[in-house]
Formats: sequence, structure tokens, C-alpha cells
Amino acid sequence: MRVLVTGAGGFLGRGLTARLADTLPQAKRIVLTDRVVEGLCGAGMETMAGDLSDPAFRRALLDPGFDLVFHLASIPGGLAEREQGLGLNVNLLTPIGLAEEVAAQRPGARLVFASSIAVYGDLGQDRVTDATVCQPELTYGAHKRMTEILLSDMTRRGVLSAISLRFPGLVARPATESGHGSAFMSQIFHSIAAGDAYTCPVAAESACWWMSRPAAVNILLHAAGASNAVPTVIQPPVLHESVGNVANAIARVTGQMAKVQFGDDATLQRIFGAMPKLDASTANSFGFQADLDLDALVKAALSGD
Amino acid sequence: MRVLVTGAGGFLGRGLTARLADTLPQAKRIVLTDRVVEGLCGAGMETMAGDLSDPAFRRALLDPGFDLVFHLASIPGGLAEREQGLGLNVNLLTPIGLAEEVAAQRPGARLVFASSIAVYGDLGQDRVTDATVCQPELTYGAHKRMTEILLSDMTRRGVLSAISLRFPGLVARPATESGHGSAFMSQIFHSIAAGDAYTCPVAAESACWWMSRPAAVNILLHAAGASNAVPTVIQPPVLHESVGNVANAIARVTGQMAKVQFGDDATLQRIFGAMPKLDASTANSFGFQADLDLDALVKAALSGD
Repeated sequence: MRVLVTGAGGFLGRGLTARLADTLPQAKRIVLTDRVVEGLCGAGMETMAGDLSDPAFRRALLDPGFDLVFHLASIPGGLAEREQGLGLNVNLLTPIGLAEEVAAQRPGARLVFASSIAVYGDLGQDRVTDATVCQPELTYGAHKRMTEILLSDMTRRGVLSAISLRFPGLVARPATESGHGSAFMSQIFHSIAAGDAYTCPVAAESACWWMSRPAAVNILLHAAGASNAVPTVIQPPVLHESVGNVANAIARVTGQMAKVQFGDDATLQRIFGAMPKLDASTANSFGFQADLDLDALVKAALSGD
Repeated sequence: MRVLVTGAGGFLGRGLTARLADTLPQAKRIVLTDRVVEGLCGAGMETMAGDLSDPAFRRALLDPGFDLVFHLASIPGGLAEREQGLGLNVNLLTPIGLAEEVAAQRPGARLVFASSIAVYGDLGQDRVTDATVCQPELTYGAHKRMTEILLSDMTRRGVLSAISLRFPGLVARPATESGHGSAFMSQIFHSIAAGDAYTCPVAAESACWWMSRPAAVNILLHAAGASNAVPTVIQPPVLHESVGNVANAIARVTGQMAKVQFGDDATLQRIFGAMPKLDASTANSFGFQADLDLDALVKAALSGD
């Protein structure tokens, strides 16, 4: 089996590649790609640095084909909103080109796509189900939704076997990473764990969807090995918890005081802090799993894995 | 005002261009484009023949910009299903490129996009509303839905002012046109009007969504002049009638006998002949109108307009 990981240098990509060699010992070839690949290479893996939106680079990269592709490369929502041309190239035209070329080289290849809950747009208060209508409110979410539709259609035709996974903001991203509107969801982990005071931009009651990077990596790997009976778009299960409850759990697990001042940023609260409950029974029935509970979330989020 | 019509040589395009000069007398420039433009030119209009999927042609065509673009060019569903590369180029990559370039030349330009009810996929029996989930079952519908999402997002950003119109199969297409799965919906008009026997592939009870070309042209022109308060995706009203009722109306209006043998093609029946009712109240509230009744549908469909 030949395996490709795009965006291998990103937060999710680094978590995935750290697990790949152990999880796929039968892989004949594992290729990691990103614009910068220094420090990425794991045992027995190859790296290839380049711009995935360049068709010539993609041709070189994809020769002679892969059986399994994790397409994680994208630019985050805030950046895509500011840099529209970049967003179009990286978040829409690149996945379209990549999917066509992966399918041309290896018809029926499994493509695991890191989609986003940004596809939903304003969710209102009703429980999210398989019947929830997608009305993306950011260009990032619009491009993710368009890519999901493309991949589902290519899977229907049998040229690919794609699974799109709608990830929430993952925790805990390094404090240095920016461009994500959901950055506060990670910063609160680092601040409390370090014993620092933290000014959280949203209210303690804000209800968010939480997922640690290790949980997200498990979900990617589960999708990689899933049968073709799995739907082409999966909303993985998440923890639905208030920011205040998560802050208390971080303090409890790390033995620190939660020195958090809560704010009322209306925009962030609307986008990330007013999440309704989620009915993830479809994903559950196919074996996808969330972090077990709040304590498990905190430990996984701060583990560095 | 500068006006561009793509796909001007198609069935809908020809109906639209026949009405444009009268409807938009204030237009400074009207440009019609298609791969072949012979015989298309109306009074005071220009034509430009070329391949819209060629970026160099689009650059020449779009210079120095248009205030109003009717993007009608596409290849039909059956052909797109057989010729995947062509479908991708014409029905997805071309609209993406065109929309970006129209917006770059003339920010906020009105773009009227001929989408399709193929975006819905299998509708089941529930009344279609604004909350109906799109699950396209053909590549044609997937690409149309992707384009709708792109255009809605560009309109949200203010770079375009787009309206996507979900048209059903229009009647009565010339008997010579092929590639449309819904061809039977047109052929039944021509056959009965000519006094010929016709073998209809679906049952008389099959419920279809009907719209004449003149009604579709009215809808295009209404969208062209609509305020920015109109939603970016509009399901226009249609006539919801059985094939048998339509056959009887054609016979009545044309004074012919309906010599029709009905069949039971399961695929066509599922896609075109099992349409649920439609709640078009949103479109109605913004002034979009269906054919008035069955007699009006038949007269308009056979008028040649």
C-alpha cells in the first residue's frame, strides 16, 4: 500500500504522521508533503516539499499513484477570508485537481478529506443530524462543502473511495499558530496548564464542540480502513461542553487554578460558542469515536500527541 | 449597461436573446457567446465564438467587463455523466473561472446562473421547500450545486451579486436535441401536436415539474432586474402535473388526438416522474412566476418563443 499525507506539517498532519508507521506497518511507501518538510520525516517515510496548488508539482508528487491519500492541506478560515485568491487556490482548486489526479492514477483509491464543521454555517439551536442543511457563512466553509460534494460524486462513480470528515476546531493547537478563529479553544488549555491568567473572549456558558488531536487522528485512521459502506461524508462525534466546564476540567486534571476572565465577543460566540447538540449516531454506528470524557479530552489535548 | 449571455446558442439562450433587445433597451452592449454563433445575432448585439473553458478566450471575452451576465452554458446531465473530463471543465471549472473574472472586472456585477433541479437528487415524497437537503445523484447536479455554493459565497462577500435559478427540464426542446434524460417531456409535445403516435417511456401518472421556455426566460429576466434582497438561490415555481394530464392538455389545445402509449422506464420515472409537490412561496414572494396553467404551458411550449 502506498500512502500520501498532504499538509503533513500542519497540526493535524504532524499528529497523524507520528502514528502512521505503527498503524500501517504494511505500507510499502509513505510520502509526506507540505510547503516545508524539514523535521517531518519519520522512520521509513519520504518527504516531498512543494506547492500543492502547482499542477506540475502534483504530477511529480502523485507519480505513480497512491492507494490511500490523507488530504489535510488547507489554509484556515480567517486567512482564507482575507486572502481570497489564496483561499480559492488552496481550498478549492487544489482539492479538485488532486482528487481527479489521484483517481486517474489509481482508480478507487481511498481519499480521506479533512473537512470542517464550517460547512454548516449558522446552526441555530436544533440538534445537528444527517439532515442538517449546510449554509456555509465563510468562504472556507463554502470551499470545504464544495469539495465534499465533488468527492461524494466521484465516489458514487467509483473513481475514488472518499470519506470527508467534518472536524471541529482541534485542541490544543500550539499557542503560536494563528489564523484560526477558534484559537481561544486551544489557548485556554495552555494558559490554565501553565498556571497563567487567561482572558477568554467568550462567555463561560458558551457551548463548543471539542475534539483532541489524538481523537482526530484516530478518526482519520478509522476512515482510512473503513469499508465502502461508510457514508462519503461523516460528522464525527465530539464532546459538547461549555467553555466553563472545560476550563474547570483543565484545572482539575493539571492541578492548577483556573484564572480565567470570560468575555462576550459576539462574533466568536456566534460562530464557535453557540453550538447545538450533535446526533452523531451515524458516525458512532460505523465505529468513529469522540474523546471519552472531559478528563480524557484534557489529557489528550495536553499530551503533545 | 453591458450584458453577456453564455450558451447563447442553446435552447434557453436562444429564447432569452430573442427577448433581450426589447427587454433591455438601455443596454449599451449585448454580447452573445457560444462555441458556434452563426445565426444568433439580434439587432444591435455582438457575437463572439469560442470555448468558454479556455481562460484566454474568457479574458478576451470579458474585457472590459459586464454589469449583467447570464451564465447558461453547460453540457446536459447525460453527456456529463458519459464524458467526465468535459463535464468537469464545462460545468464546474468554467463557472468558477468565469465568476472570479466577472467579479474582478466589475465588482458586484449581477450574475444570473442557470442551475438545475438536478441539485436535489432523490427527493422522496415530501414537499420541496427551502429546507430541502441537496444530495445530487448525477455529476451534472453535483457541479451545479457546487457552483451555487460558490456564487452564494461570492455574493455574501459582495464581489458579485449572483442569483442561481433551479430550472426543471424545459419544454418543448426541439426533437433533434439529445443528451437530456428529460427529452420525453418535450417529445410528447411535438408528437401529439403533429398528430403522431408517441411511446412515452414513463407511466401516465408520473408527476413531473413543467416549465415552458417563455416562462424560464421571464424568470431569467426577472432575476436580472431583482434587488439584492432576493436570495442567492431561487427555486422558481413550476407546474406540478402528471404526464397524462399534460398529454390531454396538449391534445385539447392543439385539437389533436393523444395517441400515447405509456411505459414504465424505472430510471426515468424515478428521476423525472416521481416529483413531489413544490412550495415555491419564497420565489413567489419575490415575483417569480410559473406558467399560469396547463393550457398556458402548452401554448407557450409550442409557440417557438
